Amino acid sequence: MLETIVEKIPLVDKSLLKEILARLDNLTKPPGSLGVLEEIAAGYCLATGTSRPLLGRKAIFTMAADHGVACQGVSAFPREVTRQMVRNMLQGGAAVNVLARHAGAETRIVDIGVDDPLIGAQGLIRRKIRNGSGDISQGPAMTLEETRRAIQVGIDLALEAADEGFTLIGTGEVGIGNTTPAAALIAALLPCPPEEVTGRGTGLDDAGLKRKTDLVRRALEVNRAALATPLETLAAVGGMEFAGLCGLILGAASRRMPTVVDGFISAAAALCACRICPRVRDYLFFSHFSAEKGYARFAALMGIRPILDLGMRLGEGTGAALGMQIIEAAVKIYNEMATFAAAGVAAKD
Amino acid sequence: MLETIVEKIPLVDKSLLKEILARLDNLTKPPGSLGVLEEIAAGYCLATGTSRPLLGRKAIFTMAADHGVACQGVSAFPREVTRQMVRNMLQGGAAVNVLARHAGAETRIVDIGVDDPLIGAQGLIRRKIRNGSGDISQGPAMTLEETRRAIQVGIDLALEAADEGFTLIGTGEVGIGNTTPAAALIAALLPCPPEEVTGRGTGLDDAGLKRKTDLVRRALEVNRAALATPLETLAAVGGMEFAGLCGLILGAASRRMPTVVDGFISAAAALCACRICPRVRDYLFFSHFSAEKGYARFAALMGIRPILDLGMRLGEGTGAALGMQIIEAAVKIYNEMATFAAAGVAAKD
Repeated sequence: MLETIVEKIPLVDKSLLKEILARLDNLTKPPGSLGVLEEIAAGYCLATGTSRPLLGRKAIFTMAADHGVACQGVSAFPREVTRQMVRNMLQGGAAVNVLARHAGAETRIVDIGVDDPLIGAQGLIRRKIRNGSGDISQGPAMTLEETRRAIQVGIDLALEAADEGFTLIGTGEVGIGNTTPAAALIAALLPCPPEEVTGRGTGLDDAGLKRKTDLVRRALEVNRAALATPLETLAAVGGMEFAGLCGLILGAASRRMPTVVDGFISAAAALCACRICPRVRDYLFFSHFSAEKGYARFAALMGIRPILDLGMRLGEGTGAALGMQIIEAAVKIYNEMATFAAAGVAAKD
Repeated sequence: MLETIVEKIPLVDKSLLKEILARLDNLTKPPGSLGVLEEIAAGYCLATGTSRPLLGRKAIFTMAADHGVACQGVSAFPREVTRQMVRNMLQGGAAVNVLARHAGAETRIVDIGVDDPLIGAQGLIRRKIRNGSGDISQGPAMTLEETRRAIQVGIDLALEAADEGFTLIGTGEVGIGNTTPAAALIAALLPCPPEEVTGRGTGLDDAGLKRKTDLVRRALEVNRAALATPLETLAAVGGMEFAGLCGLILGAASRRMPTVVDGFISAAAALCACRICPRVRDYLFFSHFSAEKGYARFAALMGIRPILDLGMRLGEGTGAALGMQIIEAAVKIYNEMATFAAAGVAAKD
């Protein structure tokens, strides 16, 4: 259950930092010269609670769901693309498949709320809560009970992954229209005005962007009474993949497994997780600076500097897969480099 | 010979771009949504001269040399660290080894001018021009003849790599004191004032930085008569690893093999190559935004936006190895993703 898992998330033990930094400074390089890689290595050690970190299996969890609000013309793509992309991912042809393979990570595609039975879709992890969320511009996306079930899907997947020997997971999603609930969630939880976090998604024109911003505003108005807690907010203006990824992040942290957060949608899910349990922040790596408009505001207010900035705005877990490679590089630096003493190299004058 | 190789470097055929961009837009993603990855994929296609790019073997070439100017207190590390780090690299314990392994790239360590016989150093590629360059604050680093020989070392290594089936190479170097000639080269060739490109290297304090800036200024004054051409500049205020990497870049381009440029030192070598042959620019990927002070000026004046910005300032080829992974990811996106038609996914409305 959500509350039980949250209780199990440990505060990271910062007293380890001294030993971790001493090791980093003993490696054959000028102190601090690997910059962010050194920070990542230290963060990974703290999250996993050891100065001898392990690298095991890696996976990207891509959660798929549909959204009632997609019928309001908030996306440049038709709604059936959600289910079509799920099939594309199961066949290995999507961007996330290519980048996950490149990173040596598995791809786990989860139907958590697609509005289609996806008959015969092999390899799909079937955890559908319902056939698409409600239209947030008219009422709540989900009930509280559905939201809790969707969160539990993520928790269960994270715990299973930890049991299977995974040590690093990434978030991903697919869901036509889902930058709209993402903007609503971020606006409600940061908080900030809707126009600061509503962007063009997969390619809206100016008129579409205006319509979308109005819908986000209306979603926050219509659901105003249901925005008292992070959980209620997630239910009111979120969606099933947001709840699932929120659960995934919390479940992973409860097992000291760090999560690599993908782009804008995943940021919204991560924000939900951080608002439910602020301690979870130390288990998160933000992989890339999404080109979707609202990400900049999110990063600024959260004080986040993502690892990569490649102008990407695709979602799926594509940024998480690339970020994972850098994180793994950082941990290997920490684990595999020779020390000054072992290599017989003179230290700084 | 240098002039013969330069003649063989083809102007990239931009007419291919239409076909390349059409393919990128047919892949199952919103147009442009992979940002810089799409630009990299297109650049790789143009450099290799095909809309069906291949990925073969990869290598980082780390060229090692000593510098007369290192005796003037321009580095936080003693001079013997050059040869000690060469041995560390041959044993696989340096940062570049870890990151190259992670990227699936070979590491080729080249002695092009270390002031030590490196007796018994197994696996070392021995191409020593001389035992360290001259002190640039007193006179030229090398003769023109030595410079040409050092360039030829790089050319030969690149041509051999192309023959062996390598398709992507990275630059790297080690040489205590070499941010000083790098600053002098960049100041002379950009051109710009020495203080804008002279930084703290491996960790100089304020007094050290002032001394170093004065030395760079003096190097440019002492050698003023010998800065008429890029080749003469390289001889006067450069060093053997700069000449070797310049040759490597030119040789690679003559075989349409792109080069991934590491940090500040490699940028100086790349600048030499670009000034000798401007066409070579289209064969270069700048891997990361070095934290060494002068890189910012270099990037701004050259109009370069490096792939990564991780606050790194180690050299060796560490940034090139990380950048290589992103470039490979980009080319795999181009080669391996399904098209809308093949995956049965609806295109944009």
